[in-house]
This record gives sequence, structure tokens and C-alpha cells, in this order.
Amino acid sequence: MPQLRKDPILDCWVIIAAERGHRPSDFRVESDPPMASRGCPFCYENEDKTPPEIYAVRPANTQPNKPGWLVRVVPNRYPALTIEGDLNRQGLGMFDLMNGVGAHEIIIESPDHHLNLCEALPEQIEHIVRAYIARVEDLRRDKRLRHIIVFRNYGRAAGASLAHPHSQLIATAIVPRLPKEKLEAARLHYQRKERCIFCDLIRQEQALGERVVLETQHFIVLSPFASRFPFELVIFPLRHSHDFVNLQPEEIADLARVLKEALWRLKVALDNPPYNYMIHTAPSTHPRPGRPEYWGTLALDYHWHIEICPRLTRVAGFEWGTGFYINPVAPEEATRFLREVG
Amino acid sequence: MPQLRKDPILDCWVIIAAERGHRPSDFRVESDPPMASRGCPFCYENEDKTPPEIYAVRPANTQPNKPGWLVRVVPNRYPALTIEGDLNRQGLGMFDLMNGVGAHEIIIESPDHHLNLCEALPEQIEHIVRAYIARVEDLRRDKRLRHIIVFRNYGRAAGASLAHPHSQLIATAIVPRLPKEKLEAARLHYQRKERCIFCDLIRQEQALGERVVLETQHFIVLSPFASRFPFELVIFPLRHSHDFVNLQPEEIADLARVLKEALWRLKVALDNPPYNYMIHTAPSTHPRPGRPEYWGTLALDYHWHIEICPRLTRVAGFEWGTGFYINPVAPEEATRFLREVG
Repeated sequence: MPQLRKDPILDCWVIIAAERGHRPSDFRVESDPPMASRGCPFCYENEDKTPPEIYAVRPANTQPNKPGWLVRVVPNRYPALTIEGDLNRQGLGMFDLMNGVGAHEIIIESPDHHLNLCEALPEQIEHIVRAYIARVEDLRRDKRLRHIIVFRNYGRAAGASLAHPHSQLIATAIVPRLPKEKLEAARLHYQRKERCIFCDLIRQEQALGERVVLETQHFIVLSPFASRFPFELVIFPLRHSHDFVNLQPEEIADLARVLKEALWRLKVALDNPPYNYMIHTAPSTHPRPGRPEYWGTLALDYHWHIEICPRLTRVAGFEWGTGFYINPVAPEEATRFLREVG
Repeated sequence: MPQLRKDPILDCWVIIAAERGHRPSDFRVESDPPMASRGCPFCYENEDKTPPEIYAVRPANTQPNKPGWLVRVVPNRYPALTIEGDLNRQGLGMFDLMNGVGAHEIIIESPDHHLNLCEALPEQIEHIVRAYIARVEDLRRDKRLRHIIVFRNYGRAAGASLAHPHSQLIATAIVPRLPKEKLEAARLHYQRKERCIFCDLIRQEQALGERVVLETQHFIVLSPFASRFPFELVIFPLRHSHDFVNLQPEEIADLARVLKEALWRLKVALDNPPYNYMIHTAPSTHPRPGRPEYWGTLALDYHWHIEICPRLTRVAGFEWGTGFYINPVAPEEATRFLREVG
């Protein structure tokens, strides 16, 4: 019989309809055709096709906006939000609106147009993680910005429009709906129990074992109990930490290996599937006295994490209309497959 | 400058990034290849390829599960939920789960495999709407079921796996997250103002005019102020009514014309795009004394409606990670295009 499962953090139910009996091979989606690198704005010698870089990992003997870099961060040429201007919050009858102020940046992850991130050297992934941290730290100085998310769209079905390996970052002047719910759930749990809800979840999953894909000194990779999507994964740091930017050097090295390994296993099990990953960390913390709902106080009760969602199934009317997901693969089953390919 | 807009019902912001300057033709997605009708389980003479019918519109001289029907409703052969069994709600440490009890039905909308719903006769659409109502009314007798959604996936990119025109219905033992938020917003507004939030919204949109695509005697078709997707539409009945099943015969006739017209305009403007539509109506109302949060009291402050979402853009990491949408077409612009093709 199908099972209904509730996410322990969000008020979100999922239908695990595993009777449909899918195996990983049922989900093999057609790979994108390899895209030519000619004219790619993220390749060497094309640095002038992007706005000027705002961060780069490059040897001391190289010039900004010239080849030689290992990782390069630039503003998105077609940003969803713009960095200049006031918020200009307004009401229009029943409606609320404000200017689309924020940052939209591209983290170009390698000069190699054809690199698959799960085959990168761990040192390269460390550079990328350090670039994420550097950009988040810099943007947090802007008091208008309250929330920053780093994410990666891989493959056309996951929303990537350019094949060259890259991630993105979007900083917004509001804390969006899903992060807000997660923050609120973590705060409520802490107020009741003086414990982190994510730490509790990790301990329970370690004890049960059946959804643990991988565990290292500093990280654990789980298939969430109420996975919305087949082969969804989440990476948690084992040490309680509300904020991604507090990663210590040895943790960065371990995260690079864990991220590579998780992506590599998805590649092998699912034949290089499209996916999105999203880094969830506590929002910016400019003090706003008396306004804790704006997360103007440190969300120390939060626990940062990375969600990885392969895009194997299509979201349809039921999901859009209800926020309720149908997942044809039990997370315990997904865990077994991903352990086997390890 | 891009604009941030907040949905007046849900706590959901949207980025309207219309500077990207898209025209409808930019969104023309490849049409699905026409699928052969041979072996289609929804065609005449193949009635035995589906479970036995539970409702049909058919002339008196025809037999159940034989050709001759105009509309036919059958259980889904691969249901996401099953109708037999107890809920068996359980806790498992921090987790909540229950059996996947519910109904999953297919409304086969016509014997014509190649019919595009927007080209159907209005009388045929009336039969379909009556089938929706009949099934919802019947399933509401089951006290385990609290929420029923009728939806339509059109085109492969919208999640349709069979080309033969059909809708679906899923009844669940819980009120899912999005409907619950809408119901709560409507109740809160009513408690404060003794007015329906949706009626207020309709009056404001009628006064402003710029997002009204179409208005008839009984219905209004709007582009929502905070549209998440390009060319998203919503159909509201002008008469306040919490429940779709209370439609009067002349309203059913008008709804059939309005739905056809809205879908036809999307077809013309966007070259037959994939889309989902979802009917949002008040949940089942078996009295649960002292438990108004289960919507055991009549949600008379709700206002039923139909959402239509063309699937023109891909949802990517930012949207999945935040619940915040980027829409490259201002709803006022979409309204102008859809008025022009009228």
C-alpha cells in the first residue's frame, strides 16, 4: 500500500507510491547533447563576454578578467534582480510590491567546459566552496539583503541554459517562504526542547540506519524520510552549525569529497541525471531590534544543509495544486541503490 | 527594474523580471508528437483495458464498459493512493506516517483521441464539468477523505503520459499544504473584515482592469498580480461560492464556454502549450467537533477557483530551494496578449 509521510521540518506530506516498482534504470533520462564550447562566455579568452569578475581564484601572475583563473565569479548578465536602488516597499490596494533589489551572480566552477563536477579534483571543489563562502560573506555586508541562496542547475531538464559548469547565487531583500518555514520550525523546536531539530533528525537517522547513504568524519548524506523526488539527498554537517560560512578548513576539504561522492553516485546509478542542488544556510543577521521574525537575531538554532534533487519525474497538476508530492521510489530503496554503487 | 510582488492570499513572493522582454513567441515549446490511438486504453473498444467505469455520460441504449459513452470515469490503473484500508496514523520517532488511503480517478473527457479540449463543443465540456461534480459529491460520502482536487495535465512537459484527453482526481485523507494555507488566509480575512478575500480581490481587479482577460455573466478570468508562471490564469466565479459542486446549470454552461475560451486563447497565443489546470474548492465537511483546523466546519469563507498554468519555463534550483518564483512576463503584458487574440 502506498504510504503518506510527513516532512519533520515542513508541514509537507509526500505520497511514497513505491508499488509502482521503479528501478533506477526506469528513470534514465536522455542526456543533453554535449554543447560546443565555441563562443561560451564562461570559457578562457571570453572573459569580456561576462560583466567584470567580482571574485576569482587565480595564480598571482594572472590578470583579472584574463585567462588563468581556476574559479571565477561574475554578475549574471541577465539578472533576475538588480543590485542598485531602494526597496521602495509599497501597497497597491490589497497587493504588496517592492523593487527587485538583490544580487544574482554566477560562480564559474572551472575553465574546463566539459568538466562534470563529480569528476573534478577535490581541490577544485574546495576552491568552489571557498568562492561560495567568500561571496556570501561579502554580500552580507549589504544591509538591504536578508537571504542568500547558492544553487546549481545541472542539465537542461534542471533549468541549466549553459553547459559550462557553473553555480548561481541569488540574494534577496526578503526571507523567502520555504527558508522561513524551516527557520520557524527550527526555532519552535529549540524553544520547546532546547535542542536543534536537525541534530535530532541526524541522530535518529544514524540510529535507524536505513536512509544513511554515506557518513564521513564531518558529514552525513541521507535520503530524506519524506523525499519529494526519487533519489533526493541531503548533506548535513555533523557538527551543529547554523551557517555555511563557518566551515573550518578540514571541513571544507571533507565537504568537497562528500559532495563529489554524492554526485558521482547519482551519476553512476542514474546515468548522469539532471539535478539541482541548493545550499540552505541561516539568513543575514543585521540587528533589527524587536523584529525577530525578520531573522534579525542570529538563527543559531538553524542547521545548514545541502539538498540535492535529481530531476527524474515531472511535476504536474496535483503537485502544483496541493504542494503534495508523489514519489515513486521509497527513500530506503534509493539508499540501497546508492550504497551499492559506492 | 525587476519587481517583487506578493501573492495576496499566500505568503509567496514572485520576481517579475519582465526586462528580459519576452514575447509569447519566445516561449513556443515543441509540441508533443501526435500519439497513435492504437492500443490507447481510453479509446472506444478498449474499455476492458481500464478498471470498470464508476461514472459515465452515455445514451440510455448503451452498456457500461462498452462504447457509446461521451465521458467516462475510471479508477487509475496505477493509483498513487488506494481506496481500501484504514489510515493507521503512526509516529516513528520524529516522523509521521499513515497509509496511502485515497482515490485516484481518471476522467476520460471524450471518445475522440485527438480532440483538443479547447476545440470541443461547449456541451461536451459541460458533460466533463458535470462528471467532475458527480465524482466529488460521491467521494465526499467517504468520511476518511478530507480533500479532493480535480486537475488536468496537458502535454508531456505538463506531466501527461497519455495523449487521449483526460483529467484526474485525487482525494486524500489530509488537507494538503497549499489548500490549507489558502483556506486559512480566507478564514483570517473573514474573521477580520466579514468579507471574502477572493471577492475583495475580484472587485479590485475589476476596478483596475489591467489584469482582466475575460469577463462573462458568471465568471472572470484574471492574470494573477503575483503570477508565478508566464501566462498563468485564474478563473473565479463572480458569485461568492465556497464549493464548485454548488454550480447552477446556467453557471455550468457559462463555465464550459469560459474554460474553452481561456484554453483556446492560450493555444493561439502560445502555439498549443503544455499546461496544468487545477480546480480549488473547499474540502469535505464531515463534522469534527472542536477541530475547525481540520476544516470540519463548512469553509463558507472560501471561494472556489480554477488555476491554469502553462508550462513554458523550467523550475530550477532557486525556485525549489526558496518557493520564490521568477516570472519573465509581467501579468499585465500577458493579459494584453491574451485579450488581443480574443
